[in-house]
Amino acid sequence: MENTHDFHSPATNLIGIGAIKDLPLELMPYKLSKALIVTDKNIIKLGYVETVEKILKSLFISYDIFDGILHPDCTISFVEDALTYFKKRLNILKRSYHIIISIGGGTNHDCAKAVAIIATNGGSIEDYEGYEKMKNPALPVISINTTSGSGSEISNFAIIEDESRKVKMTIGDSKMMPIISVNDPMFMQTMPPDVTASSGIDVLTHSIEGFVSTEASPITDSLALKSIKLVFKYLKRAYENGNDLEAREQMMFASVMAGMVFNNAGLGYVHSMSHQLGALYNEIHGTCNGILLPHVFEFNSPSIPDERIFNINEIIGLEAETKKDAVNNIKHSIQNLCEDIKLPDHLSSIGFNENDLEFMSKNALKDICSITNPRKGTLTDIMDIFKAAI
Amino acid sequence: MENTHDFHSPATNLIGIGAIKDLPLELMPYKLSKALIVTDKNIIKLGYVETVEKILKSLFISYDIFDGILHPDCTISFVEDALTYFKKRLNILKRSYHIIISIGGGTNHDCAKAVAIIATNGGSIEDYEGYEKMKNPALPVISINTTSGSGSEISNFAIIEDESRKVKMTIGDSKMMPIISVNDPMFMQTMPPDVTASSGIDVLTHSIEGFVSTEASPITDSLALKSIKLVFKYLKRAYENGNDLEAREQMMFASVMAGMVFNNAGLGYVHSMSHQLGALYNEIHGTCNGILLPHVFEFNSPSIPDERIFNINEIIGLEAETKKDAVNNIKHSIQNLCEDIKLPDHLSSIGFNENDLEFMSKNALKDICSITNPRKGTLTDIMDIFKAAI
Repeated sequence: MENTHDFHSPATNLIGIGAIKDLPLELMPYKLSKALIVTDKNIIKLGYVETVEKILKSLFISYDIFDGILHPDCTISFVEDALTYFKKRLNILKRSYHIIISIGGGTNHDCAKAVAIIATNGGSIEDYEGYEKMKNPALPVISINTTSGSGSEISNFAIIEDESRKVKMTIGDSKMMPIISVNDPMFMQTMPPDVTASSGIDVLTHSIEGFVSTEASPITDSLALKSIKLVFKYLKRAYENGNDLEAREQMMFASVMAGMVFNNAGLGYVHSMSHQLGALYNEIHGTCNGILLPHVFEFNSPSIPDERIFNINEIIGLEAETKKDAVNNIKHSIQNLCEDIKLPDHLSSIGFNENDLEFMSKNALKDICSITNPRKGTLTDIMDIFKAAI
Repeated sequence: MENTHDFHSPATNLIGIGAIKDLPLELMPYKLSKALIVTDKNIIKLGYVETVEKILKSLFISYDIFDGILHPDCTISFVEDALTYFKKRLNILKRSYHIIISIGGGTNHDCAKAVAIIATNGGSIEDYEGYEKMKNPALPVISINTTSGSGSEISNFAIIEDESRKVKMTIGDSKMMPIISVNDPMFMQTMPPDVTASSGIDVLTHSIEGFVSTEASPITDSLALKSIKLVFKYLKRAYENGNDLEAREQMMFASVMAGMVFNNAGLGYVHSMSHQLGALYNEIHGTCNGILLPHVFEFNSPSIPDERIFNINEIIGLEAETKKDAVNNIKHSIQNLCEDIKLPDHLSSIGFNENDLEFMSKNALKDICSITNPRKGTLTDIMDIFKAAI
């Protein structure tokens, strides 16, 4: 009889062109005096960190900057480097940072969350793999986003790559939800086209997987459909002209909504399988999603209620007589969009090796994202989906 | 150039049948030891407070209960009574409550928020009328909802009636946003039909006013349309059979979404005018909204983009060739729904007195909700809308 659909998000989300200017007013009541900025050298070069530094100075908040993250994924070693930096800067009274501010895309936010977990819970990051493994609230995190994709800035998940096991760990706990997120398109204009493309397809994948998830609710449904609509309308424009602020703004809204969707409805096999490709081939997450999404959608379709298939078909602006037509429409629309924004459509183009098939498929089934996939697959099913995408 | 649409909500929203059972797990990390419950005698009688008391006992959290609220609205005197109660129970070390837990509908949540503001900011509640007048974060509030309507449990607004001035004050500040909201239909089954009706129309008004507001965003748009759809589908069922758990559940989702909408997109003249009727005639807020909504919608329609009018028309399931047809459809659909759930459709039936017309219209224009109304009206316009609804 019980049927719960809890909704978690940062309490404060600053969104829109110029949103960063509201940050001082939001920070003031917290009476902070010491912050750690977690970022990377490229974000510093682009001048975004300097903007945040000015805000901190105006509020008399002292800060240190850890800029040791490399892309495309947050690994355990980056987290350890950041922790070493964090601990070195505690003074003799062990007065810790009040807050961690991450500036960048999902990789930087995930690293910041991992540091925030250990800061108040101790141990090492591997201890928190899975769902709700921490005891204490993490150190407060403010996440300032520079991409439109991961949704990490408004989610209580962190994906950390374990290089030794060649898997991506998923850590999920509302106790590490950022307290403030910032999504200002002014911080996104410098996203190069390939990042716009891959992160935009990540948005689409979050919305479609969340919409067909076993944990979908009317709240996530409404956000997911709108987000899908916006991606099909604006991603190509944002890709073709990064200075098209309207397209950037609408893709940012799509990304925020998709973040709310997956954070509360969960994901599915696209992400479970994509995590394996990322861990093994160091390939960009969104790119992997784009290749897998049409094939996973087709596999899932028998378990997705007809109405939901037609909902997606309609929101993209297509017509279909039968469920089968609608599934084909959706599949081809995704593939056409990926082609338009120059993303690869086959695993062979990202160095896929058939020898890894079983290892990856086994790990995909164990991935936390598989729990909410609408159709339960066997090892053979997952291997077949990978094969169909080669 | 700047264009921001910040999104505020409680970080944690427990939603769905059985959601209350997740509360202990959410409370645990806060390590609380002292709570003040703000509620009314009817809610105690219904056994809902006892359920919460059991949870607090299991976590070794001591608590006091203030049950001095009377309906339908939260007045300054209730806030003062609650504050007196609050202060009396501080021990000699002035160890304050860690948290305030409100159990009930919007009236109780608004009272709890007012106490939470004064507890950390001092002064009296009139000092905080308007937007963002407080300096310090309010004492944390957890709001456990027993109606599907006000949205107060997930909003950073409180409506407090000033009996001496015969106006309703609106207090808005994200620093008093509840930290956890609970919406469990099990706590809503005992809502009597008239409360189901009036609070359900309040939901509809939140969504329609938020959808046509000057501050609407793609996020609030998607939530508003879904919420409107659910109200037209489920309100009559929930009204006719309070034990219809599916209808209760869907109305609860509609209410939560509508709360997110108005909290972030704002409202309009229906609420500005309805606040005056409430303050003068002590009439139920949702009932006033139901009478005014069709007339305000008609007045606003020239300033509402055609597409939005057709969006609402379509989501209700109606067809229209012209914008005028669509406006009429929507107006009549609202009136038919109100008739189905036995709400009055004229101001004359709630004791409206034409001598109050100018006083109320002047105050309506000053109400904070007027800021985001899509069409700017004059005093005469507001008076004419009131007259049309007599």
